[in-house]
Amino acid sequence: MNDKPWQINEAHRRQLGQVDMPPRLLLGPGPSNAHPRVLQALSMRQVGHLDPAFVQLMNEVQELLRYAWQTDNSLTIPVSGTGSAAMEATLANLVEPGDTVLVGVNGYFGLRLVDMAERYGAMVVAMERPWGEVFTLDEIRVGLETHRPAVLALVHAETSTGACQPLDGVAALCQEFDCLLLVDTVTSLGGLPLFIDDWGIDAAYSGSQKCLSCPPGISPLTFGPRALDKLQRRRTKVANWYLDMSLVSKYWGNERTYHHTAPINMNYGLREALRLVAEEGLEARWARHRANAQLLWDGLAELDLTCHVPEAYRLPSLTTVRVPDGIDAKVVTGRLLQEYNIEIANGLGQLAGKVWRIGLMGYNSRPENVLLLLAALAKLI
Amino acid sequence: MNDKPWQINEAHRRQLGQVDMPPRLLLGPGPSNAHPRVLQALSMRQVGHLDPAFVQLMNEVQELLRYAWQTDNSLTIPVSGTGSAAMEATLANLVEPGDTVLVGVNGYFGLRLVDMAERYGAMVVAMERPWGEVFTLDEIRVGLETHRPAVLALVHAETSTGACQPLDGVAALCQEFDCLLLVDTVTSLGGLPLFIDDWGIDAAYSGSQKCLSCPPGISPLTFGPRALDKLQRRRTKVANWYLDMSLVSKYWGNERTYHHTAPINMNYGLREALRLVAEEGLEARWARHRANAQLLWDGLAELDLTCHVPEAYRLPSLTTVRVPDGIDAKVVTGRLLQEYNIEIANGLGQLAGKVWRIGLMGYNSRPENVLLLLAALAKLI
Repeated sequence: MNDKPWQINEAHRRQLGQVDMPPRLLLGPGPSNAHPRVLQALSMRQVGHLDPAFVQLMNEVQELLRYAWQTDNSLTIPVSGTGSAAMEATLANLVEPGDTVLVGVNGYFGLRLVDMAERYGAMVVAMERPWGEVFTLDEIRVGLETHRPAVLALVHAETSTGACQPLDGVAALCQEFDCLLLVDTVTSLGGLPLFIDDWGIDAAYSGSQKCLSCPPGISPLTFGPRALDKLQRRRTKVANWYLDMSLVSKYWGNERTYHHTAPINMNYGLREALRLVAEEGLEARWARHRANAQLLWDGLAELDLTCHVPEAYRLPSLTTVRVPDGIDAKVVTGRLLQEYNIEIANGLGQLAGKVWRIGLMGYNSRPENVLLLLAALAKLI
Repeated sequence: MNDKPWQINEAHRRQLGQVDMPPRLLLGPGPSNAHPRVLQALSMRQVGHLDPAFVQLMNEVQELLRYAWQTDNSLTIPVSGTGSAAMEATLANLVEPGDTVLVGVNGYFGLRLVDMAERYGAMVVAMERPWGEVFTLDEIRVGLETHRPAVLALVHAETSTGACQPLDGVAALCQEFDCLLLVDTVTSLGGLPLFIDDWGIDAAYSGSQKCLSCPPGISPLTFGPRALDKLQRRRTKVANWYLDMSLVSKYWGNERTYHHTAPINMNYGLREALRLVAEEGLEARWARHRANAQLLWDGLAELDLTCHVPEAYRLPSLTTVRVPDGIDAKVVTGRLLQEYNIEIANGLGQLAGKVWRIGLMGYNSRPENVLLLLAALAKLI
């Protein structure tokens, strides 16, 4: 205790009203609007992070995540941070200093994987394609043959470009070259076909605020047997305490050993979001995302707007639309927000100023949202 | 897109009821119960993480944090994870490989600081005291003189022991020996006197789920000018992308450069929690915590129970009580939970089986909670 008399500095003591926010329709690259049932679940009263009732909820969240991801992996958990934390967790745990990591860079999140892997001491090789394109199986084979990486990292659904990387046959190549397959599924989980086990993905991560319709702040991660094996055989400690899966997995596994305090209420929200996935069923959910994306694409064509990504590998959850000549992209996104409370996003990196990014994710993938957006766009372009 | 017909695995498709939790009174070391207004704020509708309305809220959260912490530091933000993430953020940013870090270890969280600092390449020296004791200014001087560390890390409020480390005069010593002062304020922020600027603390972190009465999942961090200077002069990249303050600070600063998606709804909750602090005022809030702790201590004495920490440096937010001979500590905590829905915690590490840990934090620091706990304890011991 400090026994001296103190003088409180009142300079930063702001008197504010209660939180209020405009009624935005979030049709950008995420966050998308949380489902109302998820928002309600967030405010359920708290229990302790080792309470038997919370331990049961942890098991339920893990089971529902396994369904959403189509995996039996025991290490399937929500990381206590946003999607980038789960991305970093995969690399921090599966990369040892000196490992070669081959990263498919065809958008912003490929670049982020490169930056992160370098911080964990990897020799990173970037395999590049223009933003909006994807890698062929032949290109991947050449990359693996040439660089013999310990890890291949690919982005299944590139949120910056709207391209969907085909994964058929990639795992077989990775096994041939004795390399782990790490996949970013941030904008695919819950929105389009994704089979962790059938496709042989060794490690994947996602976000809560995209096709799962939960607010950001918690992010799914799954490690398969080959990834776990590498984790157990590490020669060095994981260079990140908070995301060290050898510790975190003991809290989420049967030991229930305290590591860090889980974000209790975000877990309530994620459970509700995943419960909605299980109620709807994956097949119906994927079909709904596909149908509403088609409605959007047809409507954009009627407005003479062109999608940036060919339909063969276009994401249903995130569409990039080319900005017509003579139109200032930012003026349109600004007016959509100010006049109609609709958020879509501008392009990033190579696509800055060239495309808009439109998300139809989870709860927001509904025909009425497509009609409204098309009507508003028609007023503004 | 994968065009092959698929087979959905239904094994993990659990059909569950909506989330429900028992009505626990959380009087352990945290999480403590969130204030009802905070729980309500969590479910406010979402906006995007770069929405002008959210940017304004970010500014408000920063201002209110400055008041709560009594600092003018510009880099005063909530980290997008739980308290351990903020702890790791201070070390990841302020330690460079080869730096000597002197850590005061008189409890569990001192040990955690040691583990984390080692992962960032520090030469760690642990300055030890038995759990429940604190360091004298002379001991700290000897430590600094002997080891000449780049960083001194101390735990202001040791949640594992209930001891409050006096900080008077420590900053002057750190400046004399050209060393940064890093302080864990997880269980002190919002509950007892704490003056970041007046006490010369260079970097501090906290949690949301203790004396601030917000759920876990977001955690305050502040860096003063000397810490910022070290961050800017780093020779190496911060070995942690998610917690790299040179990037994160550009999102929270005027640039608003996208780094990771902030946990929107947790920020709503933290804003409401900090608004409650500003409404009550720090002086009244500290006095309330002190008065209810005194009520608890008096009541424990009437039950012939002894506090583990001498009153001179006993925390008002977390009290450790010695388990009387012949009593199984875990039986009592188990019955408190099962029969009365009250959570208190058992001891950790050196104090396992020897003490109970009782928290009176934030919203939960109320006389009625003290009376109920004492009445329940009287039935069980």
